[in-house]
Amino acid sequence: MQNDKIDIEISEVGPRDGLQSIAEIMPTEAKKAWIRAEAAAGVREIEVGSFVPAKILPQLADTAELVRYARNIEGLVVAVLVPNLRGAQAALEAGAHKISIPFSVSETHCQRNVNRSHQQMFEEIERIITLMNSVAGKRPHFEVGLSTAFGCSIEGPIAESKVVAIAEKLVALGVDEVGLSDTTGSGNPAQLRRLVTQIWEHCGREKLNGVHLHNTRGQGLANALAAVDLGLTTIDSSLGGIGGCPAAPGASGNIVTEDLVFMLEAMGLRTGIDIEQLITVRELVQAALPSTELYGFTANAGLPKGYTPQR
Amino acid sequence: MQNDKIDIEISEVGPRDGLQSIAEIMPTEAKKAWIRAEAAAGVREIEVGSFVPAKILPQLADTAELVRYARNIEGLVVAVLVPNLRGAQAALEAGAHKISIPFSVSETHCQRNVNRSHQQMFEEIERIITLMNSVAGKRPHFEVGLSTAFGCSIEGPIAESKVVAIAEKLVALGVDEVGLSDTTGSGNPAQLRRLVTQIWEHCGREKLNGVHLHNTRGQGLANALAAVDLGLTTIDSSLGGIGGCPAAPGASGNIVTEDLVFMLEAMGLRTGIDIEQLITVRELVQAALPSTELYGFTANAGLPKGYTPQR
Repeated sequence: MQNDKIDIEISEVGPRDGLQSIAEIMPTEAKKAWIRAEAAAGVREIEVGSFVPAKILPQLADTAELVRYARNIEGLVVAVLVPNLRGAQAALEAGAHKISIPFSVSETHCQRNVNRSHQQMFEEIERIITLMNSVAGKRPHFEVGLSTAFGCSIEGPIAESKVVAIAEKLVALGVDEVGLSDTTGSGNPAQLRRLVTQIWEHCGREKLNGVHLHNTRGQGLANALAAVDLGLTTIDSSLGGIGGCPAAPGASGNIVTEDLVFMLEAMGLRTGIDIEQLITVRELVQAALPSTELYGFTANAGLPKGYTPQR
Repeated sequence: MQNDKIDIEISEVGPRDGLQSIAEIMPTEAKKAWIRAEAAAGVREIEVGSFVPAKILPQLADTAELVRYARNIEGLVVAVLVPNLRGAQAALEAGAHKISIPFSVSETHCQRNVNRSHQQMFEEIERIITLMNSVAGKRPHFEVGLSTAFGCSIEGPIAESKVVAIAEKLVALGVDEVGLSDTTGSGNPAQLRRLVTQIWEHCGREKLNGVHLHNTRGQGLANALAAVDLGLTTIDSSLGGIGGCPAAPGASGNIVTEDLVFMLEAMGLRTGIDIEQLITVRELVQAALPSTELYGFTANAGLPKGYTPQR
């Protein structure tokens, strides 16, 4: 499965974005089983955690252990989130393949989320790039997620020109890639098309390949469709649609990996993922998070009778 | 509101498709209040019921009364479903503006749904066209909904060539329009694009303007986006996403009017509908159907902070 050519990379963010707003702690062994099971279903990239202080997010205190564990799964890209330079150092030490930092276009949200102004974020990102450049051998892929790019539940609408200007500045600083994040599930397909097109124009097409969408207003898959229609190749999603942002009031779950994979595979786009096997992973997550509601339609409805992916 | 130019016509099917699979009977006065409230929010077409025998669907026994009532709402297109010639006669008598009959591409589903083979359906539709042609003055718009066009939960996959051939034959018989119905929520955007394009090629673009989508696997809004991107101008949906098909096992609710209107308006497409007013209609429906679960995300999440439709 791992070596097949794929069209769309699904980046599973459940173990990080999904868990970060859930109070009941998932045991490390259950997280490992989840990561292993999704990789076995064909998921090729998993964000396994975030290097935030354990006292802020005890749920993610085992991130270093998970990175080391997941690195042993052949073919899996092990991604992590970091809030700052210290987190990036920890991510490097643990051996993450991909490191992302959120840069919230809403400065109010930025301040609440990582306790830094935009200026301080640019400086911190420069320090991380310097750190990355000092790595001997293959350095990890370093991406900045443009949070609240589609709207902020504190500030309200976000000017598209601001998103583009920040993306441009980040690319000039030397980040490998920027990603568009609809943190609050406010976005719509037309807005996504405008943002992607403008960032491509200003930063180069290779600098934006992915989106991170939430399903707060049920628009997640429509936005994902707009993204793949444009030619974006990476979509974040979370198993059972768990997720949210502790710093953005009203933000709710990510788009549901199972429903996304069904859409893409049914359309004839290859994800490398076996959807029936993927759906079985829900049981494992539900068993480890008995009080948490899982979302998604395809798992409950089942695949259509006689379904085979279009090829 | 009613005279504004709009881009996308939302056809509210809740009072028919929504209610037909719900056991608790909604009182006629509550249905009238629902229809009136949606029309006041700017909805310009409502399918108010179905002329099926009351002993089969007691929920819809008041359809004639609802047609007569709704005709008094200025600017509202009053649509009804009919299963056969007798239903079409009743619809004409009551004064419906638009009459639809379902033609299930799956012959097994067709037989279970309306107790007729394909050949019998073609004959019945011919008789309805003859009846329509005998009407003095403006005859109602007569449309055939191609049910199970995206897949059948009894037969499984449905050949696209079969959908197109049936559409062609119906148009040749003289129906005003055909519509594509994803009765079982099995469809995907690529399939929708292929079906629409082929029907346009074979039947003429003016013969297919709308789709009827279900959200069984969460794909509803993505399919609706594909439809409006292509240039289709009518989308069926149901308030609170209620709905299903009694004759198709596993079929669940329609796409949610509130979430659809949010997507379209946020994209800058005019529906003529005031979304805040539309959302308040849920309370009225919920009060009249206390045991029924309403679906949808936008109503629960609320509109994004500072939201204004793009123009």
